[in-house]
Amino acid sequence: MIRIGIDVGGTGIQTGVVNEQGAILAEESIVTRIVLPFSEQIRLMTESVRHVIASAGFTEDQILSVGVGVPGIASKETGEIIKCPNMGWNHVPFREEWIRLLNKPLFIDNDANVAALAESVSGVSAGTSSSVFITIGTGIGSGIILNGKIWSGAHGIGAELGHTIMKLGGVPCTCGNHGCLERYCSATALIRMACEKAGSLSADSALLRAVNGDLSAMNARIVIDLARNGDPVASAVFNEWTDNVSQAIANVVNFLDPEVIVIGGGVSRAGAFLLDAINEKYPQYVVFRDQPIPEVRLAVLGPKAGIIGAAMLS
Amino acid sequence: MIRIGIDVGGTGIQTGVVNEQGAILAEESIVTRIVLPFSEQIRLMTESVRHVIASAGFTEDQILSVGVGVPGIASKETGEIIKCPNMGWNHVPFREEWIRLLNKPLFIDNDANVAALAESVSGVSAGTSSSVFITIGTGIGSGIILNGKIWSGAHGIGAELGHTIMKLGGVPCTCGNHGCLERYCSATALIRMACEKAGSLSADSALLRAVNGDLSAMNARIVIDLARNGDPVASAVFNEWTDNVSQAIANVVNFLDPEVIVIGGGVSRAGAFLLDAINEKYPQYVVFRDQPIPEVRLAVLGPKAGIIGAAMLS
Repeated sequence: MIRIGIDVGGTGIQTGVVNEQGAILAEESIVTRIVLPFSEQIRLMTESVRHVIASAGFTEDQILSVGVGVPGIASKETGEIIKCPNMGWNHVPFREEWIRLLNKPLFIDNDANVAALAESVSGVSAGTSSSVFITIGTGIGSGIILNGKIWSGAHGIGAELGHTIMKLGGVPCTCGNHGCLERYCSATALIRMACEKAGSLSADSALLRAVNGDLSAMNARIVIDLARNGDPVASAVFNEWTDNVSQAIANVVNFLDPEVIVIGGGVSRAGAFLLDAINEKYPQYVVFRDQPIPEVRLAVLGPKAGIIGAAMLS
Repeated sequence: MIRIGIDVGGTGIQTGVVNEQGAILAEESIVTRIVLPFSEQIRLMTESVRHVIASAGFTEDQILSVGVGVPGIASKETGEIIKCPNMGWNHVPFREEWIRLLNKPLFIDNDANVAALAESVSGVSAGTSSSVFITIGTGIGSGIILNGKIWSGAHGIGAELGHTIMKLGGVPCTCGNHGCLERYCSATALIRMACEKAGSLSADSALLRAVNGDLSAMNARIVIDLARNGDPVASAVFNEWTDNVSQAIANVVNFLDPEVIVIGGGVSRAGAFLLDAINEKYPQYVVFRDQPIPEVRLAVLGPKAGIIGAAMLS
């Protein structure tokens, strides 16, 4: 038997055939077309499922379940997608529409929750019963695994670590509030901090040369690579930013204390350089720092976590 | 059958006989004597248990279990109290010592966890399966109930909401870090904010008159009562402080989304005046504020929660 995992994103929709051990046997991608009516989007997705299982030599009878990870929130009970701005979906009857075209058990969850589940079943947090997955990219996403299951809250509105307030009266956030954690810990924050510093540098500084004087070309990789190579300005920015990230991790530990913390998202590609900085800084922010504390690990499944985790939904 | 609940505090130790419905049948209190050797403290506590059950007409045979709530952290497995500064206990073999004197199933947990459990079994959050209890007093304590059970973390170091960082680079905290939530949301924070405002007031202002010009006599009740009576300065302080508390509650909701939030501790005696302010402010800080969100309730068991919750430990 096979499970289907679908990772819905604002630019593409990845569909994978996953076996019961969590390995991807086949996958394909279609372009997200937000302008299409919702029912047409669903139709294209079910078509993609049929296409990918056929290409892998399976039949519909062999599908045990279909899981969908979305950048938004959904109701587990009704299968309604409550809100998914990147897809233009607002209170759409996803499951109802889907099973008219492909009648299999259908599960829907938030994409960060799904990635957290994937890492906890066949990734870096496999074998643990509790973990918090933090994805650091343009924003900050998070997924909570407790007793081996996704915890998205009593009303399905939890695991939004990026919008907990980390600096009272801080910088404005896209969510309408001020001082949200993702304003200080995301890749976007790292870029902002680098640009603030770069504004007062001479034109021949490494940070400005790396973007040919054009701050709009700044990205997280440039800052991290320069810091890794010892550039003092980039190092100072990286140091301040990893200090913020370490305090964010300590917030999760002081409040929830999971077995492990998993760091994913684009920024996690910085590897040991990032992990070492966090491991050096984060324990000092834990109240009971003289006790055993959660280990911080880097995600290992990368973009595949979306497909694998979705397929594991139940 | 009866259960014994013991609430260990820095000034007194309350021992209660609790029936299986969670009602206190008898109780007594002994003075905490931190100068005594640990083994002698234990002996006095077991004596108090024997005394209170006899006074209520029970015998030792009728004791089902003994639960102890401590202002510190303990190991559920070994029964060791790892750290309890107010009692001078540091890695003391509590259970081992206790059962030599009174051999009954013995459970130990943190006092805020215990109060959270009490409210969730026979208090204001009864009937819910998840809740977060926040006690607002000199500091901020918290207890997390998930699936009807205390969640204190994978390493027993969680539920320290008061020491999550709410203002990066903020005021120093007793824990050694800066900007901890309890520096902005505790009764101590309310008093500090009132004193800061009062420093620039004329001597006939209501806040200064209430303490006869002596700021060291300021307390939370004075500020809240003046705010309730419409004094503009106290109202501004109360408004800013409840704004902080509301953001703290929203942090819990955005991250964990429990069924309900319970507010306890001395400050909760402000009643509807406090609850109304929180209910007006808190939803705006929730990311998915257009969805159903956790209800905020005031604790109802008061200081008795310590005995009741301890008796319910299992």
